[in-house]
Amino acid sequence: MSTTQAAVLARLDARDDDFSIALDALLDWEGVSDAEVQTRVSDIIQAVRRQGDAALVELTNRFDRVDVADMTSLTLDQARLAQAYEAIDPAQRNALDQAAERIRSYHERQKPSSWQYEEADGTMLGQKVTPLDRVGVYVPGGKAAYPSSVLMNVVPAHVAGVADIIMVVPTPDGVINELVLAAAFVAGVQQVFTIGGAQAVAALAYGTETVPRVDKIVGPGNIYVATAKRAVFGQVGIDMIAGPSEILVVSDGSTPADWLAMDLFSQAEHDEDAQAILVSWDAAHLDEVQASIERLLPTMERESIIRASLAGRGALVRVDGPEQAVELINRIAPEHLELSVASPESWVDQVRHAGAIFMGSYTAEVLGDYCAGPNHVLPTSGTARFSSPLGVYDFQKRSSLIHCSAEGADRLGRIASVLARGESLTAHARAAENRLNPDGDR
Amino acid sequence: MSTTQAAVLARLDARDDDFSIALDALLDWEGVSDAEVQTRVSDIIQAVRRQGDAALVELTNRFDRVDVADMTSLTLDQARLAQAYEAIDPAQRNALDQAAERIRSYHERQKPSSWQYEEADGTMLGQKVTPLDRVGVYVPGGKAAYPSSVLMNVVPAHVAGVADIIMVVPTPDGVINELVLAAAFVAGVQQVFTIGGAQAVAALAYGTETVPRVDKIVGPGNIYVATAKRAVFGQVGIDMIAGPSEILVVSDGSTPADWLAMDLFSQAEHDEDAQAILVSWDAAHLDEVQASIERLLPTMERESIIRASLAGRGALVRVDGPEQAVELINRIAPEHLELSVASPESWVDQVRHAGAIFMGSYTAEVLGDYCAGPNHVLPTSGTARFSSPLGVYDFQKRSSLIHCSAEGADRLGRIASVLARGESLTAHARAAENRLNPDGDR
Repeated sequence: MSTTQAAVLARLDARDDDFSIALDALLDWEGVSDAEVQTRVSDIIQAVRRQGDAALVELTNRFDRVDVADMTSLTLDQARLAQAYEAIDPAQRNALDQAAERIRSYHERQKPSSWQYEEADGTMLGQKVTPLDRVGVYVPGGKAAYPSSVLMNVVPAHVAGVADIIMVVPTPDGVINELVLAAAFVAGVQQVFTIGGAQAVAALAYGTETVPRVDKIVGPGNIYVATAKRAVFGQVGIDMIAGPSEILVVSDGSTPADWLAMDLFSQAEHDEDAQAILVSWDAAHLDEVQASIERLLPTMERESIIRASLAGRGALVRVDGPEQAVELINRIAPEHLELSVASPESWVDQVRHAGAIFMGSYTAEVLGDYCAGPNHVLPTSGTARFSSPLGVYDFQKRSSLIHCSAEGADRLGRIASVLARGESLTAHARAAENRLNPDGDR
Repeated sequence: MSTTQAAVLARLDARDDDFSIALDALLDWEGVSDAEVQTRVSDIIQAVRRQGDAALVELTNRFDRVDVADMTSLTLDQARLAQAYEAIDPAQRNALDQAAERIRSYHERQKPSSWQYEEADGTMLGQKVTPLDRVGVYVPGGKAAYPSSVLMNVVPAHVAGVADIIMVVPTPDGVINELVLAAAFVAGVQQVFTIGGAQAVAALAYGTETVPRVDKIVGPGNIYVATAKRAVFGQVGIDMIAGPSEILVVSDGSTPADWLAMDLFSQAEHDEDAQAILVSWDAAHLDEVQASIERLLPTMERESIIRASLAGRGALVRVDGPEQAVELINRIAPEHLELSVASPESWVDQVRHAGAIFMGSYTAEVLGDYCAGPNHVLPTSGTARFSSPLGVYDFQKRSSLIHCSAEGADRLGRIASVLARGESLTAHARAAENRLNPDGDR
């Protein structure tokens, strides 16, 4: 096969016989389910369920290398969040405000309405939408503490009408990220607990003396957090367990090579497992982008992470034309899709699977990470085949409404009776038959 | 405490001091996660992934006690489904048709639209809704084979626009349920494989030579099926893992006691773990219902199941008035809520959590099981706090759309740059800065 492992990242050609195998190898990702992690997480959850606050304090002192006596020292109220907001750099405060406002405005359009309709015989059917009562948002501490994630996880819950939004964020070695607290204030968080790991997830799922039990837990975290979320699923709702972040860029050659190189870097700089793939039918253009990558890489602050990510999971892929590019998009079902082409709107109808679609040369994916408005919590690892961006719909649920008139109960009861007897469920049949009109003969 | 274990089911009083503890004990349910089941399921999934059809045939012969040579003998096409539909009793055919039509009509109203809007600077934001490509519906074989479940799982997928709907249903000892096949025909299933258990789930999740890989698996099943669904979650989407079915009936005394007794029986007859609870503030009415239960129970075909279910998990609960009844509803978050009261519409606003709400004396819960229109796949075990009935929305997903104008990229890029630098993600910042207008100074 003509695949050559370039200095920086792989070059693939979709017209090669073994392209499909090479692509599968490139995309392959399975989260590790480690028995030891499972056991440790399970023990932590049990400890928090049994001993509540006492376990939380002990585990937090141990894992986050702090020394607190009780939960009071691990609780921040809204006044503390307001203080963080007032204290940060005015340019950052302004940027947070504008981003939150744009995210809010977009998500407002996701709000569904309750509805009902009446049938000719007076029977009413409907669907009632209600917000969740209380939500817990997990925010990682340390290096990966992103204020933008706070906005993206909290604002949709707020727009949905969730009355009580609790945030947990660990403070390893006692270090608090003021930007994260400021974002929590802007987004509408009620209360913050400076706890993290599986113990924070357990506290949110089951409640302790201090931490109230929530109905759903959202937000990213390390392997302990992800494992704990899986374990408490059912007791509470959870969002998707995210894999590494990825981007697929399709370029027709009209976007400057340096811009595309930086777009790939912005994905790759997240971590070594992040994936950045560029697709084009213009081989010379791919050469140009590769040259840009090689030239710009040494100028990057996170050069080593980017280099590892591109070498391990990045690729420049040549296809034979736009149609093959569309096939590739739908096969990969990317988290982020950049359509860096002249008429992106003509492509959108053909894209069946993608978390978010960034259209045209000006729409850098990073604008969506921060402030365009749509959510940056997106389905990864091909799960855009069956799942959606985090949204207002994740913080609401529906209840069906049925109100039969006497006539409706007669009409429906006759159908139900036949079907129930076909399933040998005679109590079902008799419950329906109780409501039949004794004079009816429909 | 005044709780008395009656002959048939428990009587509780919400005004008692230890009511809360008694209620928790009554509601308590945790699905068993058995290490042996986990291991067996894991082995089955590995076998199907490695050996495909050969493993499917071997496992099906073994577990379903059949003797087939290849997948051809385990495949039914639409012509076979049509044949079943033509051969069943005309009254049943008519009932299936009417039920499917009503379910379709209700679910049509759940269909969301894609939308987009343009901002002043020409930037376009939107949300695109697409159906899943292919869905697998699991239908249990043997005794618990319910044609109504086929309608409830398949029709929403069909309404959502899913092009390819695959059904799997085991045929233990080679016994095929013709009503189930007829329901599959009515609902719009493309193809049926007569396989079941963890092997069927594995085949749908990963695909074999014959069984196409799907994007989501829905439908109820035994502990092996549930464990397999959990295991493949992420590779494919899954619906909720259901617990035992339950009903909470609130009665103001205006509904005949015999009707209420039968409504409780219709829940209890599902299985020994099913839960039926009646709440009222009228103690004499509760006595009447209890008398009806005792009188009618010996007339029931499934008497022993109903008796076990009522004794183990049923209750008649006295509350001090409607307000306390509402509190109880929201605490339990029932799968099915029957508001057997004079003005149920005045209650609905106060109900925050319930899968489906059946309003008024005429609306027997069983009408919703078969043909009212709303889905009978509902959140169990209190999960109505955060989840919804199965619906069209479970078979579609959303993609965000972002198309920035040059001016928009400048405006948003300035915000993104500040936030990205605050997160020390300089490639993000530079990707945004690439699109800034060099002459702009906003």
